[in-house]
Amino acid sequence: MRAEIISVGTELLLGQILDTNASYLAQQLAELGIDVHFKQTVGDNDARVRGAVRLALSRADVLLITGGLGPTEDDLTVASVAGELGRPLERHDDIAERLRQFFALRGRVPPESVFKQALIPAGAHPIPNMRGTAPGVHLEHDGRELFLMPGVPFEMYGMMEGYVAPRLRERTGSAVIHSRVIRVTGEGESAVESRIKDLIGGSSPTIAPYAKLGEVHLRVTAKGAPDDVARQLDTGERALRERLADLIYGIDDDTLEGVVGRLLADRRATLAVAESCTGGLIAKRLTDVPGSSTYFLEGIVAYSNDAKRDLLNVPPAVIEEHGAVSAEVAESMARGVRQRAGSTWGLAVTGVAGPAGGTATKPVGLVFLGLATADHVQHRRLNLGEEAGRAGIRFLAAQAGLNLLRLRLLRSDA
Amino acid sequence: MRAEIISVGTELLLGQILDTNASYLAQQLAELGIDVHFKQTVGDNDARVRGAVRLALSRADVLLITGGLGPTEDDLTVASVAGELGRPLERHDDIAERLRQFFALRGRVPPESVFKQALIPAGAHPIPNMRGTAPGVHLEHDGRELFLMPGVPFEMYGMMEGYVAPRLRERTGSAVIHSRVIRVTGEGESAVESRIKDLIGGSSPTIAPYAKLGEVHLRVTAKGAPDDVARQLDTGERALRERLADLIYGIDDDTLEGVVGRLLADRRATLAVAESCTGGLIAKRLTDVPGSSTYFLEGIVAYSNDAKRDLLNVPPAVIEEHGAVSAEVAESMARGVRQRAGSTWGLAVTGVAGPAGGTATKPVGLVFLGLATADHVQHRRLNLGEEAGRAGIRFLAAQAGLNLLRLRLLRSDA
Repeated sequence: MRAEIISVGTELLLGQILDTNASYLAQQLAELGIDVHFKQTVGDNDARVRGAVRLALSRADVLLITGGLGPTEDDLTVASVAGELGRPLERHDDIAERLRQFFALRGRVPPESVFKQALIPAGAHPIPNMRGTAPGVHLEHDGRELFLMPGVPFEMYGMMEGYVAPRLRERTGSAVIHSRVIRVTGEGESAVESRIKDLIGGSSPTIAPYAKLGEVHLRVTAKGAPDDVARQLDTGERALRERLADLIYGIDDDTLEGVVGRLLADRRATLAVAESCTGGLIAKRLTDVPGSSTYFLEGIVAYSNDAKRDLLNVPPAVIEEHGAVSAEVAESMARGVRQRAGSTWGLAVTGVAGPAGGTATKPVGLVFLGLATADHVQHRRLNLGEEAGRAGIRFLAAQAGLNLLRLRLLRSDA
Repeated sequence: MRAEIISVGTELLLGQILDTNASYLAQQLAELGIDVHFKQTVGDNDARVRGAVRLALSRADVLLITGGLGPTEDDLTVASVAGELGRPLERHDDIAERLRQFFALRGRVPPESVFKQALIPAGAHPIPNMRGTAPGVHLEHDGRELFLMPGVPFEMYGMMEGYVAPRLRERTGSAVIHSRVIRVTGEGESAVESRIKDLIGGSSPTIAPYAKLGEVHLRVTAKGAPDDVARQLDTGERALRERLADLIYGIDDDTLEGVVGRLLADRRATLAVAESCTGGLIAKRLTDVPGSSTYFLEGIVAYSNDAKRDLLNVPPAVIEEHGAVSAEVAESMARGVRQRAGSTWGLAVTGVAGPAGGTATKPVGLVFLGLATADHVQHRRLNLGEEAGRAGIRFLAAQAGLNLLRLRLLRSDA
């Protein structure tokens, strides 16, 4: 079975946005073991969309088409595909009703243009959109299958995972390609790679490292019958765990904040966070996790020295003597926020995120972490450099703070 | 003049990397005023590369082809193009000599495979690579021009900017295409569109809407001589401002948090933020902006009722009577954080981000904003629905909070 991906959107041909949809779909198809020989990108133009569909039908069994499903004048993918296949558009009253409800729930009156999205080619099945208004379209035509999905990534992912991928999995039968991502943090790519050099490459399972900001992903990929594939992935994971131990924080969709949350919940421990340079990012990441209210008590973003004194009880003399960016202040902030909240753990960050504010002794990228329990406090000094930029430094500081807590939790029962 | 972009590389069809080269080239071509109707992506396969080149030659005047120029077995782009055009490969001794020097400078002996890169189709010009080993290839064929460049972005940028773009600029004369993005928030895509329906489409300037999470981008694009283009963009922007007024929060790379920051700084006003469901996201966004410490005093992430009482002075009786997610609590949080910090403004958010925790009267997606000054407090109720998911609801709530503050700041001098 062979698939082809068509991305529709003039903004793609103007280079205004990156085509992340196409690479997401390519990945999904690779995991399904379906070959992709071509991707095409066309603008919002009837003749050219029809031409691209015609070409793809001549050389592929499955077409995944994204973009141009919305309510605007530009959105012509459904009509163009219907035209190319010689199928009239039919209005689906249930979709129209769903659109009306979508707007009613928000206390708004739908503009007439919205109902364009209720038009579906004859003989096609609408694909439910749980995350937006435009339904997708599933068509079978001369033994080929076409899936039309919206260009909004979040909506498209939902359709791909909820409808298209399961449908394709049924068709492909037994041989599959699966991957497992082993997520590593606390060391850089070269250091991680040098520990596992002899495991990289190889055939089923293959192990390939990908450097991300603040972490390294090791992708283990295996091909074969489903049972065999699962066994290969386990073997690959075990080999990596032997080398990397607790540098590995999670698997696949695990997030560092989710793993820290689970460790806290397991120990019935609670956490409060005091942030200076990360400005709320650690609290934001912790509360990205559903159910985080059971262990996350409060966060203080103490940007000013006054806030550090009033909210976190950092003695002005300590700031005076060591500076706001110092091990002493980080420890004092961690102690202060823990005491305030009455939590098991207090985590604090202070640093210079830049671009301005750096000095010879306190350069941009210098960050101190503080971590306090009722009877212990520690700090860690990080030199993150300034190359990563303000956003990068903030992310790396948050990552290091969460990882420091993770490693301490692993070594503690409370 | 019409151009087509062909990206060669199996890794692109497996979704292992994003095709940033294609969007870079598309942008460069847009700025040169050259239309792009199609992009193609093919794997490292002779027949398919030839097919893609044949198709592109049938519909474009200029072909930009990237990838597959290196020394490995996989790298077959030059040979495939030469084959398709019926031109033999010829060895260029000066390129071979340069490759030898490249390795000698690094104290290494070149492997024999490297010299594959000295083979260029008959009649073609090598394009110097100042940043790596593989030269590019420039070919004229039947009135068409083909440019082959390496897939390594850094090397390709050098060739595009140093050789290809100047060459194309000579051919196109002076006409350019420029865009300006008008950023809108506070109303959905359909509502925004219905206000500007008659302005959409048209030719120079064209206006096209793009829906983003929590905002709509209106892209104004103009084509012509440089002076004329700037005038057209101003005309387009003015027309949109007449219709949309303060729904427009910014232009091009402006961010909502950056605009709010500028408004605060201009008025020498300060801000403190109290967050429940957004969990630090508003503070994080505000402090993404360099220099935000001049107006952002502190943020409180008060997830628990205890924190709302202790840190924000929300009376337990108010929480008891109205629930933590209520207009009364939002107002009380805004007042409390403003008083605590001694700031000009206090902004607060409380809501149900889900996925759990919703009830019939307080469903997932229900959010209250509170905004306080020394002598006034207001609230706003939002029904965000649950389709956007936890992350989406949190983002939309943060967006609405920042926008509420922006609109109030626009109407105030202090």
